[in-house]
Amino acid sequence: MTSETKTPWSLDPRLAADTVAAGDLPLSRVLLSNDANYPWLILVPRRARAVELIDLAANDRAQLMDEIARVSTVLRDLTACHKLNVATIGNMVAQLHIHVIARFRDDGAWPAPVWGKLPAKPYDPPVRDAFLRDLKAALAADGGGQLE
Amino acid sequence: MTSETKTPWSLDPRLAADTVAAGDLPLSRVLLSNDANYPWLILVPRRARAVELIDLAANDRAQLMDEIARVSTVLRDLTACHKLNVATIGNMVAQLHIHVIARFRDDGAWPAPVWGKLPAKPYDPPVRDAFLRDLKAALAADGGGQLE
Repeated sequence: MTSETKTPWSLDPRLAADTVAAGDLPLSRVLLSNDANYPWLILVPRRARAVELIDLAANDRAQLMDEIARVSTVLRDLTACHKLNVATIGNMVAQLHIHVIARFRDDGAWPAPVWGKLPAKPYDPPVRDAFLRDLKAALAADGGGQLE
Repeated sequence: MTSETKTPWSLDPRLAADTVAAGDLPLSRVLLSNDANYPWLILVPRRARAVELIDLAANDRAQLMDEIARVSTVLRDLTACHKLNVATIGNMVAQLHIHVIARFRDDGAWPAPVWGKLPAKPYDPPVRDAFLRDLKAALAADGGGQLE
């Protein structure tokens, strides 16, 4: 038994509180930030105790990059955004998580990064659910395998 | 002749103005941000016209992840930082560039991301040059090949 199996991964409750889950890619749980200011996805590699990118094994890092690319492509296609912002900060919630955010030249924080700029604006549930449906359909159609 | 060779890569002059070059990894130029508030490196893949991660070919994305991991490991070893922040934003300078920043619980922006928090504090040149020497030595010693 490896130490990995002794401590199963679970989603940090602070990440869970601010998001809705879209589903799981082979490595990462995909979350939608419940903030309608920006189309904002978060990838959380399901690896216990990972805090930094360099806590992941090299093959997991490669898989993560592939999942970042898939999610980035789908998010840009769905939103027609002007720019993608991709970041892992983790100064407040240590569990490794990667933000993939669709930015627009007329969003409320542009050109600054989003953190600390606008109060979160929770989605209307029907808008959120429609976005999640579109996201799942796009990830099922891109040839990389659907969200589980 | 591919279109790649028609438009040679060159470093964006705004990135050049705010940094000093440490050298080149196989894909990326490594820059040191001239801001002594935080040990702050920037990787710039030498690919003309790349703006988003998904503008890179898959093999270049994999190489970039490897270079992010090498630079992250060396930066943490050199600084004994508490957290790494890794991000590609690019809302103001479009040329694809990846920030790798060493953060401390007592730095002037903690726990916020660094952008927009503190005015840049240029290095004393001897301090900067010593850091660059240490960085180059660490990258020469990690088994991944030295900076060119």
